[in-house]
Amino acid sequence: MSQHMKDTVQAYFKLFNAQDAKGIADLYAENAKVTDPVGTPSKDGKEAILAFYTMAVSNGAVLTQEGSTRIAGNAAAFAFTVSVGGMAKGGAAVDVELPKGGMTIDVIDTFYFNDEGKVTEMKAYWSRDNITQT
Amino acid sequence: MSQHMKDTVQAYFKLFNAQDAKGIADLYAENAKVTDPVGTPSKDGKEAILAFYTMAVSNGAVLTQEGSTRIAGNAAAFAFTVSVGGMAKGGAAVDVELPKGGMTIDVIDTFYFNDEGKVTEMKAYWSRDNITQT
Repeated sequence: MSQHMKDTVQAYFKLFNAQDAKGIADLYAENAKVTDPVGTPSKDGKEAILAFYTMAVSNGAVLTQEGSTRIAGNAAAFAFTVSVGGMAKGGAAVDVELPKGGMTIDVIDTFYFNDEGKVTEMKAYWSRDNITQT
Repeated sequence: MSQHMKDTVQAYFKLFNAQDAKGIADLYAENAKVTDPVGTPSKDGKEAILAFYTMAVSNGAVLTQEGSTRIAGNAAAFAFTVSVGGMAKGGAAVDVELPKGGMTIDVIDTFYFNDEGKVTEMKAYWSRDNITQT
């Protein structure tokens, strides 16, 4: 399970950077919940999650992991940066007002897994406070 | 609040590295809950939390932050490494079997805060999987 959770995190980065929203949604359980960022309304269920990632990847954001994937019980936590050229195409997928130009966002995500190895809960920790305009 | 949460995380590192368990416990609310690591029983309430940190700091572990403190809603998340010379003094404070010699552990913590600015919930994400023997 530990290896599966680490592999899922690596798949998440790979799929996101390939703008494969469908592939990302398939990492999630049917009734999963995504809160990105913590403090904003969650996206509940695979359909809402697919819609969220479809918009999120449309801006060509690139995720780069920082440090190792932490594994604990049925959970994984990992730090990364998001590099965005700008919000030209799809607009922001998140309920946070973002600057117009390029930026780097520091983020930490947690994934919780069910026994089938699917992600049931994702929480993303970041805010305007973690944005560097580029 | 955002600045207070960042300051609390910095205080946490400073107090831990000064082996000030009492100072750390004072960052927490009376009825706070510490789960370290996720997947093991939580320490509930300030007394249990003080006992946990008293043991945790007794081994002279040194915490070093990796990257920035992520702030989201009423929460903070941060990555760090724990460098431990060995378990000679107090034994491990955690319900995880640790190697006998020196080690570095990669960890991500999340803190949730109440309106008074005290930490109500801490979760630490790490396992044997995140240990490098030194």
